[in-house]
Amino acid sequence: MSWHATVLTLFPEMFPGPLGLSLAGRGLREGRWRLEARQLRDFATDRHRSVDDTPFGGGAGMVLRPDVVDAACADAIAAGPDRPLIYLTPRGRLLDQALVREIAAGPGCILLCGRYEGLDQRVIEARAMREVSVGDYVLSGGEPAALVLLDACVRLLPGIMGATASAEEESHADGLLEYPHYTRPAAWQGRAVPEVLLSGHHAEVARWRRAEAENATRQRRPDLWLRHHGRNSDASLLVPGPTDT
Amino acid sequence: MSWHATVLTLFPEMFPGPLGLSLAGRGLREGRWRLEARQLRDFATDRHRSVDDTPFGGGAGMVLRPDVVDAACADAIAAGPDRPLIYLTPRGRLLDQALVREIAAGPGCILLCGRYEGLDQRVIEARAMREVSVGDYVLSGGEPAALVLLDACVRLLPGIMGATASAEEESHADGLLEYPHYTRPAAWQGRAVPEVLLSGHHAEVARWRRAEAENATRQRRPDLWLRHHGRNSDASLLVPGPTDT
Repeated sequence: MSWHATVLTLFPEMFPGPLGLSLAGRGLREGRWRLEARQLRDFATDRHRSVDDTPFGGGAGMVLRPDVVDAACADAIAAGPDRPLIYLTPRGRLLDQALVREIAAGPGCILLCGRYEGLDQRVIEARAMREVSVGDYVLSGGEPAALVLLDACVRLLPGIMGATASAEEESHADGLLEYPHYTRPAAWQGRAVPEVLLSGHHAEVARWRRAEAENATRQRRPDLWLRHHGRNSDASLLVPGPTDT
Repeated sequence: MSWHATVLTLFPEMFPGPLGLSLAGRGLREGRWRLEARQLRDFATDRHRSVDDTPFGGGAGMVLRPDVVDAACADAIAAGPDRPLIYLTPRGRLLDQALVREIAAGPGCILLCGRYEGLDQRVIEARAMREVSVGDYVLSGGEPAALVLLDACVRLLPGIMGATASAEEESHADGLLEYPHYTRPAAWQGRAVPEVLLSGHHAEVARWRRAEAENATRQRRPDLWLRHHGRNSDASLLVPGPTDT
């Protein structure tokens, strides 16, 4: 039973898109994961196959009908009932690597892509959807967000990226930004590679990289730095140790 | 002169991908924006067309060579010199709607997609790249991030989405999450549409939506709520007014 993603969308032809290439695409062809994109319009019940209607209370745009969305969800759930049902929306919890890991570790996911003004709120509640946002910006629909979420999950699946993914994953799991990288040529435009990286002293290289990761995080992302700090060294000052009881 | 995006990538066949469909795709065909995806490998100078090498200091993965990336940048800059050169990386500034607006308002952008462990740090500095992250998760490469960034920008270009985009844009610019939406059928699975939305009182509908947006932001995203609050009502308590000098 491979990891199984179902995307509910008005644009199934956007999938697999970039996920059909590179390592994710190879994994797809090798059956290491499965992807189905289902046309929401196929679940409309009137003869015009309409999926949306104007919002109650007025305003611009259209809203996806609860009955149509609900029927599409029922169909996807029947095909794999233990998967989380995720609605991609700027109102959702921000996607982070912890959530990516959680979804990748499960049996797969059902991703619902909104268009227009979004979904009727009642079907979000009736289906207890998990609302997830990939970032604080507005997209034309949930499809680019679904591609991002799937890309992030698929690279963690067994047999997709191998050792490279695990290494990157570890550095990110620590809550720090990555250290800078250098490769050949050693001499380029008068810009030198930091000497420690050419020294062959593994412990010093590791120390330098750690310091660079900490500096970058502190300077570029004080929010991540505070969280990292809270999780690590400083926490021991605040929480009583096992001998203090 | 339409808005002009150049993507530098090892997977040019991932573009336009989803951006070739829906309203972005129509805009592309109508010449409202332009998209070129350039193969980084075309800028390699050795006979193996190698673009990457092992990292100085050791470690898993490969790093993109500074000379190859630099040549690709030079080529893209020559084709449109006033565009920001953006490197998509988890080390970058988080993309938000303010940055999307800024990029969409300019002449276009050059997007550099990393793969493997990323770029040699020297070319990032030599070209003074803007480092941008679409979110705190690890992707297989910059390409899905580029698709997200372009989708967010393109929908704001003149003639792409019209009034719908501007309406959504306004609600987001305020720094609040959106209010919930409802549409037909009014009776569905015993779940009612909030009565105020059926009342026809425009002022009350607006008040209800504002309160729902504020509640959702406060509950789901305390970080956004604090920022919104700082920008609005509370700021007037902290900053001396014009008559206080």
